Amino acid sequence: MSQLLRVQNFMVSSDGFGAGEGQSLERPFGHADPGEMFSWAGATASWPMRTDSGGSRGLDDYFTRDFSRNIGAEIMGRNKFGPQRGPWQDHEWLGWWGDEPPFHTPVFVLTHHPRPSFTLSDTTFHFVDADPATALDRAREAAGGKDVRLGGGATTVREFLDADLVDTLHVAVAPVKLGSGARLWESPDELLDRFHRDVVPSPSGGVIHHLYWRK
Amino acid sequence: MSQLLRVQNFMVSSDGFGAGEGQSLERPFGHADPGEMFSWAGATASWPMRTDSGGSRGLDDYFTRDFSRNIGAEIMGRNKFGPQRGPWQDHEWLGWWGDEPPFHTPVFVLTHHPRPSFTLSDTTFHFVDADPATALDRAREAAGGKDVRLGGGATTVREFLDADLVDTLHVAVAPVKLGSGARLWESPDELLDRFHRDVVPSPSGGVIHHLYWRK
Repeated sequence: MSQLLRVQNFMVSSDGFGAGEGQSLERPFGHADPGEMFSWAGATASWPMRTDSGGSRGLDDYFTRDFSRNIGAEIMGRNKFGPQRGPWQDHEWLGWWGDEPPFHTPVFVLTHHPRPSFTLSDTTFHFVDADPATALDRAREAAGGKDVRLGGGATTVREFLDADLVDTLHVAVAPVKLGSGARLWESPDELLDRFHRDVVPSPSGGVIHHLYWRK
Repeated sequence: MSQLLRVQNFMVSSDGFGAGEGQSLERPFGHADPGEMFSWAGATASWPMRTDSGGSRGLDDYFTRDFSRNIGAEIMGRNKFGPQRGPWQDHEWLGWWGDEPPFHTPVFVLTHHPRPSFTLSDTTFHFVDADPATALDRAREAAGGKDVRLGGGATTVREFLDADLVDTLHVAVAPVKLGSGARLWESPDELLDRFHRDVVPSPSGGVIHHLYWRK
Protein backbone atom coordinates (compact mmCIF):
# COMPACT_ATOMS: atom_id res chain seq x y z
CA MET A 1 0.00 0.00 0.00
CA SER A 2 2.43 2.67 -1.11
CA GLN A 3 -0.25 5.22 -2.09
CA LEU A 4 -3.20 5.09 0.29
CA LEU A 5 -6.69 6.36 -0.46
CA ARG A 6 -7.67 8.24 2.71
CA VAL A 7 -10.96 9.70 3.94
CA GLN A 8 -10.23 12.36 6.56
CA ASN A 9 -12.28 14.54 8.87
CA PHE A 10 -15.50 13.34 7.31
CA MET A 11 -18.49 14.28 9.44
CA VAL A 12 -21.75 12.40 9.72
CA SER A 13 -24.79 12.71 11.94
CA SER A 14 -25.50 10.05 14.55
CA ASP A 15 -27.98 8.52 12.10
CA GLY A 16 -25.37 8.30 9.35
CA PHE A 17 -25.91 11.28 7.05
CA GLY A 18 -23.05 13.40 5.66
CA ALA A 19 -25.38 16.21 4.60
CA GLY A 20 -29.04 17.03 4.85
CA GLU A 21 -31.60 17.43 2.10
CA GLY A 22 -32.09 20.50 -0.10
CA GLN A 23 -28.47 21.45 -0.71
CA SER A 24 -28.20 24.92 -2.26
CA LEU A 25 -25.86 27.89 -2.59
CA GLU A 26 -27.17 29.23 0.71
CA ARG A 27 -27.23 25.85 2.46
CA PRO A 28 -24.32 23.69 1.22
CA PHE A 29 -25.24 21.00 3.76
CA GLY A 30 -28.99 21.20 3.12
CA HIS A 31 -31.03 21.16 6.33
CA ALA A 32 -27.97 20.12 8.35
CA ASP A 33 -26.31 22.88 10.40
CA PRO A 34 -22.61 22.83 9.44
CA GLY A 35 -21.78 24.82 12.57
CA GLU A 36 -23.03 21.94 14.67
CA MET A 37 -21.18 19.25 12.72
CA PHE A 38 -17.88 21.08 12.11
CA SER A 39 -17.37 22.94 15.38
CA TRP A 40 -14.95 20.32 16.77
CA ALA A 41 -12.67 20.88 13.75
CA GLY A 42 -13.10 24.65 13.55
CA ALA A 43 -11.88 24.96 17.15
CA THR A 44 -8.46 23.46 16.37
CA ALA A 45 -5.24 25.32 15.56
CA SER A 46 -4.72 23.36 12.32
CA TRP A 47 -8.19 23.76 10.78
CA PRO A 48 -7.29 24.47 7.12
CA MET A 49 -9.60 27.50 6.88
CA ARG A 50 -8.30 29.13 10.08
CA THR A 51 -6.87 32.62 9.54
CA ASP A 52 -5.72 33.51 13.09
CA SER A 53 -3.03 31.94 15.29
CA GLY A 54 -5.36 30.58 17.99
CA GLY A 55 -7.06 27.22 18.39
CA SER A 56 -6.62 24.06 20.43
CA ARG A 57 -3.70 21.63 20.03
CA GLY A 58 -5.14 18.59 21.74
CA LEU A 59 -6.56 15.39 20.28
CA ASP A 60 -8.86 17.00 17.69
CA ASP A 61 -5.93 18.95 16.28
CA TYR A 62 -4.15 15.70 15.39
CA PHE A 63 -6.99 15.03 12.96
CA THR A 64 -7.06 18.46 11.33
CA ARG A 65 -3.26 18.71 11.14
CA ASP A 66 -3.20 15.36 9.32
CA PHE A 67 -5.40 16.81 6.54
CA SER A 68 -2.53 17.65 4.20
CA ARG A 69 0.26 15.36 5.48
CA ASN A 70 1.55 13.30 2.54
CA ILE A 71 -1.49 14.08 0.36
CA GLY A 72 -0.77 14.59 -3.36
CA ALA A 73 -4.28 14.80 -4.83
CA GLU A 74 -7.96 14.86 -3.84
CA ILE A 75 -10.99 13.21 -5.38
CA MET A 76 -14.39 14.76 -4.65
CA GLY A 77 -17.93 14.33 -5.87
CA ARG A 78 -19.58 17.09 -7.81
CA ASN A 79 -21.97 17.78 -4.92
CA LYS A 80 -19.01 18.74 -2.76
CA PHE A 81 -17.71 21.04 -5.49
CA GLY A 82 -20.91 23.05 -5.82
CA PRO A 83 -24.69 23.23 -5.61
CA GLN A 84 -25.36 22.85 -9.37
CA ARG A 85 -26.85 19.68 -10.79
CA GLY A 86 -27.04 18.56 -14.44
CA PRO A 87 -25.18 20.22 -17.36
CA TRP A 88 -23.09 23.29 -16.48
CA GLN A 89 -25.04 26.47 -17.32
CA ASP A 90 -21.74 28.38 -17.36
CA HIS A 91 -18.24 28.05 -15.92
CA GLU A 92 -18.43 30.90 -13.43
CA TRP A 93 -18.72 28.66 -10.35
CA LEU A 94 -15.18 27.98 -9.03
CA GLY A 95 -16.02 26.08 -5.84
CA TRP A 96 -16.89 27.17 -2.30
CA TRP A 97 -13.37 28.06 -1.22
CA GLY A 98 -12.53 31.47 -2.73
CA ASP A 99 -9.18 32.36 -4.32
CA GLU A 100 -7.12 30.17 -1.94
CA PRO A 101 -8.67 26.70 -1.78
CA PRO A 102 -7.29 24.60 1.10
CA PHE A 103 -6.23 21.66 -1.11
CA HIS A 104 -2.92 22.85 -2.67
CA THR A 105 -2.89 19.81 -5.00
CA PRO A 106 -4.72 18.61 -8.10
CA VAL A 107 -8.41 17.96 -7.32
CA PHE A 108 -10.47 15.54 -9.43
CA VAL A 109 -14.18 16.37 -9.46
CA LEU A 110 -16.38 13.45 -10.51
CA THR A 111 -19.10 14.54 -12.92
CA HIS A 112 -20.85 13.25 -16.01
CA HIS A 113 -20.73 16.77 -17.46
CA PRO A 114 -17.39 17.79 -19.00
CA ARG A 115 -15.74 21.09 -18.18
CA PRO A 116 -12.22 22.51 -18.73
CA SER A 117 -9.72 22.34 -15.88
CA PHE A 118 -8.90 25.57 -14.04
CA THR A 119 -6.38 26.68 -11.43
CA LEU A 120 -6.85 28.81 -8.30
CA SER A 121 -3.59 29.57 -6.49
CA ASP A 122 -1.87 26.16 -6.12
CA THR A 123 -5.02 24.04 -6.56
CA THR A 124 -6.03 22.77 -10.02
CA PHE A 125 -9.53 21.35 -10.50
CA HIS A 126 -10.02 18.66 -13.13
CA PHE A 127 -13.45 17.31 -14.13
CA VAL A 128 -13.62 13.58 -14.69
CA ASP A 129 -16.37 11.31 -15.99
CA ALA A 130 -15.06 7.96 -14.77
CA ASP A 131 -15.79 5.03 -12.48
CA PRO A 132 -14.08 5.09 -9.05
CA ALA A 133 -11.15 2.82 -9.98
CA THR A 134 -10.30 4.86 -13.09
CA ALA A 135 -10.61 8.15 -11.24
CA LEU A 136 -8.31 6.79 -8.52
CA ASP A 137 -5.73 5.75 -11.14
CA ARG A 138 -5.70 9.30 -12.50
CA ALA A 139 -5.42 10.84 -9.03
CA ARG A 140 -2.59 8.49 -8.02
CA GLU A 141 -0.68 9.39 -11.15
CA ALA A 142 -1.08 13.10 -10.37
CA ALA A 143 -0.14 12.62 -6.69
CA GLY A 144 3.56 12.08 -7.37
CA GLY A 145 3.90 9.08 -5.09
CA LYS A 146 1.89 10.60 -2.25
CA ASP A 147 -1.47 9.48 -0.91
CA VAL A 148 -4.86 10.50 -2.32
CA ARG A 149 -7.57 12.09 -0.20
CA LEU A 150 -11.18 11.13 -0.86
CA GLY A 151 -13.00 14.32 0.06
CA GLY A 152 -16.66 13.30 -0.08
CA GLY A 153 -19.56 13.83 -0.06
CA ALA A 154 -21.22 10.80 1.47
CA THR A 155 -22.40 9.36 -1.85
CA THR A 156 -18.90 9.50 -3.29
CA VAL A 157 -17.31 7.92 -0.20
CA ARG A 158 -19.96 5.19 -0.36
CA GLU A 159 -19.15 4.45 -4.02
CA PHE A 160 -15.44 4.08 -3.27
CA LEU A 161 -16.17 1.91 -0.22
CA ASP A 162 -18.42 -0.31 -2.32
CA ALA A 163 -15.60 -0.67 -4.87
CA ASP A 164 -13.25 -1.59 -1.97
CA LEU A 165 -10.80 1.20 -2.84
CA VAL A 166 -10.59 2.99 0.54
CA ASP A 167 -7.54 2.24 2.73
CA THR A 168 -8.18 4.46 5.78
CA LEU A 169 -11.31 6.29 6.89
CA HIS A 170 -11.73 8.86 9.66
CA VAL A 171 -15.36 9.73 10.37
CA ALA A 172 -16.41 12.14 13.13
CA VAL A 173 -19.90 11.21 14.32
CA ALA A 174 -21.77 14.26 15.60
CA PRO A 175 -24.48 14.06 18.28
CA VAL A 176 -27.21 15.35 15.96
CA LYS A 177 -29.88 13.48 14.00
CA LEU A 178 -30.73 14.54 10.46
CA GLY A 179 -33.45 12.00 9.59
CA SER A 180 -32.74 12.21 5.87
CA GLY A 181 -30.11 13.36 3.38
CA ALA A 182 -26.96 11.88 1.84
CA ARG A 183 -26.30 8.66 3.72
CA LEU A 184 -22.83 7.30 4.48
CA TRP A 185 -23.95 4.23 6.41
CA GLU A 186 -26.75 2.64 8.37
CA SER A 187 -24.33 1.89 11.21
CA PRO A 188 -20.61 2.47 11.90
CA ASP A 189 -20.37 -1.29 12.48
CA GLU A 190 -21.14 -2.26 8.90
CA LEU A 191 -17.51 -1.78 7.82
CA LEU A 192 -16.04 -4.12 10.44
CA ASP A 193 -15.90 -7.08 8.09
CA ARG A 194 -13.18 -5.34 6.07
CA PHE A 195 -11.65 -2.81 8.49
CA HIS A 196 -10.06 -2.58 11.90
CA ARG A 197 -11.53 0.26 13.94
CA ASP A 198 -10.70 2.52 16.87
CA VAL A 199 -13.53 4.50 18.48
CA VAL A 200 -12.25 7.62 20.26
CA PRO A 201 -14.51 10.23 21.88
CA SER A 202 -13.25 13.78 21.44
CA PRO A 203 -12.42 15.17 24.90
CA SER A 204 -13.92 18.58 24.08
CA GLY A 205 -15.39 18.57 20.58
CA GLY A 206 -18.60 16.65 21.26
CA VAL A 207 -18.03 14.17 18.42
CA ILE A 208 -16.90 10.54 18.43
CA HIS A 209 -14.01 9.79 16.10
CA HIS A 210 -14.20 6.48 14.21
CA LEU A 211 -10.86 5.44 12.70
CA TYR A 212 -10.86 2.57 10.19
CA TRP A 213 -7.97 0.90 8.47
CA ARG A 214 -7.94 -2.09 6.16
CA LYS A 215 -7.64 -5.60 7.58
CA MET B 1 3.99 30.91 18.06
CA SER B 2 5.35 30.46 14.58
CA GLN B 3 8.00 27.88 15.56
CA LEU B 4 6.73 25.58 18.27
CA LEU B 5 8.89 23.55 20.64
CA ARG B 6 7.19 20.14 20.69
CA VAL B 7 7.68 17.05 22.87
CA GLN B 8 6.30 14.02 21.02
CA ASN B 9 5.77 10.36 21.82
CA PHE B 10 7.54 10.73 25.14
CA MET B 11 6.93 7.72 27.34
CA VAL B 12 6.82 7.65 31.12
CA SER B 13 5.88 5.06 33.70
CA SER B 14 2.73 5.50 35.76
CA ASP B 15 4.91 6.85 38.55
CA GLY B 16 6.47 9.49 36.27
CA PHE B 17 9.86 8.12 35.16
CA GLY B 18 11.10 8.38 31.57
CA ALA B 19 13.86 5.83 32.12
CA GLY B 20 15.02 3.55 34.89
CA GLU B 21 18.28 3.54 36.79
CA GLY B 22 21.57 2.11 35.58
CA GLN B 23 21.48 3.18 31.93
CA SER B 24 24.15 1.41 29.89
CA LEU B 25 25.00 0.28 26.39
CA GLU B 26 23.10 -2.94 27.01
CA ARG B 27 20.18 -1.25 28.81
CA PRO B 28 19.56 2.20 27.32
CA PHE B 29 16.52 2.63 29.57
CA GLY B 30 18.20 1.26 32.67
CA HIS B 31 16.00 -1.15 34.62
CA ALA B 32 12.94 -0.10 32.57
CA ASP B 33 11.83 -2.53 29.86
CA PRO B 34 11.62 -0.49 26.66
CA GLY B 35 9.47 -3.21 25.07
CA GLU B 36 6.82 -2.60 27.70
CA MET B 37 6.88 1.17 27.35
CA PHE B 38 7.24 1.46 23.57
CA SER B 39 5.03 -1.38 22.33
CA TRP B 40 2.06 0.92 21.61
CA ALA B 41 4.26 2.93 19.22
CA GLY B 42 6.10 -0.01 17.69
CA ALA B 43 2.77 -1.55 16.66
CA THR B 44 1.86 1.39 14.40
CA ALA B 45 2.42 1.71 10.65
CA SER B 46 4.28 5.04 11.04
CA TRP B 47 6.75 4.07 13.76
CA PRO B 48 9.97 5.72 12.46
CA MET B 49 12.07 2.59 12.95
CA ARG B 50 9.60 0.29 11.15
CA THR B 51 11.10 -1.51 8.16
CA ASP B 52 8.08 -3.48 6.87
CA SER B 53 4.76 -2.29 5.41
CA GLY B 54 2.51 -3.53 8.23
CA GLY B 55 1.26 -1.91 11.39
CA SER B 56 -1.93 -0.33 12.70
CA ARG B 57 -3.39 2.93 11.37
CA GLY B 58 -5.76 3.81 14.20
CA LEU B 59 -5.40 6.39 16.97
CA ASP B 60 -1.85 5.50 18.03
CA ASP B 61 -0.65 5.92 14.46
CA TYR B 62 -1.71 9.59 14.50
CA PHE B 63 0.92 10.13 17.18
CA THR B 64 3.76 8.31 15.46
CA ARG B 65 2.96 9.78 12.04
CA ASP B 66 3.13 13.25 13.57
CA PHE B 67 6.75 12.63 14.63
CA SER B 68 8.32 14.34 11.62
CA ARG B 69 5.48 16.60 10.40
CA ASN B 70 6.81 20.18 10.18
CA ILE B 71 9.88 19.41 12.31
CA GLY B 72 13.11 21.16 11.26
CA ALA B 73 15.46 20.28 14.13
CA GLU B 74 15.68 18.22 17.33
CA ILE B 75 17.20 19.00 20.72
CA MET B 76 18.16 16.05 22.92
CA GLY B 77 20.04 15.53 26.15
CA ARG B 78 23.32 13.70 26.10
CA ASN B 79 21.78 10.76 27.96
CA LYS B 80 19.46 10.17 25.02
CA PHE B 81 22.41 10.30 22.61
CA GLY B 82 24.44 7.62 24.37
CA PRO B 83 25.40 5.82 27.55
CA GLN B 84 28.68 7.70 28.13
CA ARG B 85 29.05 10.21 30.95
CA GLY B 86 31.79 12.81 31.49
CA PRO B 87 34.46 13.76 28.92
CA TRP B 88 34.37 11.83 25.62
CA GLN B 89 36.95 9.04 25.68
CA ASP B 90 36.84 8.96 21.89
CA HIS B 91 34.48 9.95 19.10
CA GLU B 92 33.52 6.47 17.95
CA TRP B 93 30.04 6.50 19.45
CA LEU B 94 27.61 7.83 16.80
CA GLY B 95 24.30 7.33 18.62
CA TRP B 96 21.92 4.39 18.99
CA TRP B 97 20.35 4.61 15.55
CA GLY B 98 22.82 3.13 13.05
CA ASP B 99 23.60 4.62 9.65
CA GLU B 100 20.08 5.96 9.07
CA PRO B 101 18.97 7.90 12.15
CA PRO B 102 15.21 8.63 12.13
CA PHE B 103 15.62 12.39 12.58
CA HIS B 104 16.51 13.64 9.05
CA THR B 105 17.27 17.13 10.42
CA PRO B 106 19.99 18.83 12.47
CA VAL B 107 20.09 17.41 16.02
CA PHE B 108 21.51 19.44 18.91
CA VAL B 109 22.92 17.29 21.71
CA LEU B 110 23.25 19.15 25.03
CA THR B 111 26.57 18.39 26.73
CA HIS B 112 29.21 20.19 28.74
CA HIS B 113 31.87 18.28 26.81
CA PRO B 114 32.69 19.64 23.35
CA ARG B 115 32.86 17.40 20.32
CA PRO B 116 32.93 18.03 16.54
CA SER B 117 29.67 17.80 14.57
CA PHE B 118 29.19 14.76 12.34
CA THR B 119 26.66 13.66 9.72
CA LEU B 120 24.96 10.28 9.22
CA SER B 121 22.78 10.14 6.11
CA ASP B 122 20.57 13.28 6.32
CA THR B 123 20.97 13.79 10.08
CA THR B 124 23.73 16.06 11.44
CA PHE B 125 24.56 15.93 15.15
CA HIS B 126 25.87 19.10 16.81
CA PHE B 127 27.15 19.21 20.41
CA VAL B 128 26.14 22.27 22.38
CA ASP B 129 27.11 23.50 25.85
CA ALA B 130 24.31 25.99 26.44
CA ASP B 131 21.32 26.79 28.62
CA PRO B 132 17.89 25.75 27.28
CA ALA B 133 16.94 29.16 25.83
CA THR B 134 20.23 29.49 23.94
CA ALA B 135 20.05 25.94 22.64
CA LEU B 136 16.49 26.58 21.45
CA ASP B 137 17.60 29.72 19.62
CA ARG B 138 20.23 27.71 17.75
CA ALA B 139 17.79 24.93 16.91
CA ARG B 140 15.14 27.39 15.68
CA GLU B 141 17.68 29.05 13.43
CA ALA B 142 18.64 25.66 11.97
CA ALA B 143 15.00 24.58 11.56
CA GLY B 144 14.30 26.86 8.59
CA GLY B 145 11.01 28.16 9.90
CA LYS B 146 9.74 24.75 11.01
CA ASP B 147 9.07 23.55 14.55
CA VAL B 148 11.68 22.07 16.89
CA ARG B 149 11.27 18.68 18.55
CA LEU B 150 12.48 18.26 22.12
CA GLY B 151 13.47 14.62 22.15
CA GLY B 152 14.23 13.95 25.82
CA GLY B 153 15.24 12.36 28.06
CA ALA B 154 13.15 13.21 31.09
CA THR B 155 15.78 15.47 32.69
CA THR B 156 16.08 17.53 29.52
CA VAL B 157 12.31 17.85 29.08
CA ARG B 158 12.06 18.91 32.72
CA GLU B 159 14.69 21.63 32.22
CA PHE B 160 12.86 23.08 29.23
CA LEU B 161 9.52 22.92 31.08
CA ASP B 162 11.06 24.73 34.05
CA ALA B 163 12.33 27.43 31.66
CA ASP B 164 8.77 27.65 30.22
CA LEU B 165 9.98 26.97 26.67
CA VAL B 166 7.74 24.01 25.74
CA ASP B 167 4.67 24.75 23.58
CA THR B 168 3.13 21.28 23.16
CA LEU B 169 3.81 18.04 25.00
CA HIS B 170 2.60 14.53 24.21
CA VAL B 171 3.35 12.01 26.94
CA ALA B 172 2.25 8.38 26.77
CA VAL B 173 1.83 7.05 30.31
CA ALA B 174 2.50 3.30 30.46
CA PRO B 175 0.86 0.99 33.04
CA VAL B 176 4.18 0.06 34.66
CA LYS B 177 5.85 1.34 37.81
CA LEU B 178 9.59 1.95 37.87
CA GLY B 179 10.06 3.21 41.42
CA SER B 180 13.17 5.19 40.54
CA GLY B 181 15.06 6.63 37.59
CA ALA B 182 14.89 9.83 35.53
CA ARG B 183 11.75 11.61 36.66
CA LEU B 184 9.56 13.71 34.35
CA TRP B 185 6.93 14.62 36.94
CA GLU B 186 5.38 13.71 40.26
CA SER B 187 1.92 13.86 38.68
CA PRO B 188 0.52 14.61 35.19
CA ASP B 189 -1.61 17.29 36.88
CA GLU B 190 1.30 19.49 37.88
CA LEU B 191 1.41 21.16 34.44
CA LEU B 192 -2.22 22.26 34.46
CA ASP B 193 -1.46 25.75 35.69
CA ARG B 194 0.23 26.55 32.38
CA PHE B 195 -1.23 24.05 29.91
CA HIS B 196 -4.55 22.82 28.57
CA ARG B 197 -4.72 19.03 28.52
CA ASP B 198 -6.57 16.19 26.79
CA VAL B 199 -6.36 12.72 28.34
CA VAL B 200 -6.97 9.99 25.75
CA PRO B 201 -6.65 6.26 26.48
CA SER B 202 -5.17 4.28 23.61
CA PRO B 203 -7.82 1.85 22.36
CA SER B 204 -5.29 -0.96 21.92
CA GLY B 205 -1.82 0.16 23.04
CA GLY B 206 -2.31 -0.01 26.80
CA VAL B 207 -1.03 3.53 27.42
CA ILE B 208 -2.87 6.75 28.23
CA HIS B 209 -1.96 9.68 26.00
CA HIS B 210 -1.64 13.04 27.74
CA LEU B 211 -1.71 15.98 25.32
CA TYR B 212 -0.71 19.40 26.62
CA TRP B 213 -0.72 22.73 24.86
CA ARG B 214 0.02 26.19 26.23
CA LYS B 215 -2.76 28.28 27.76
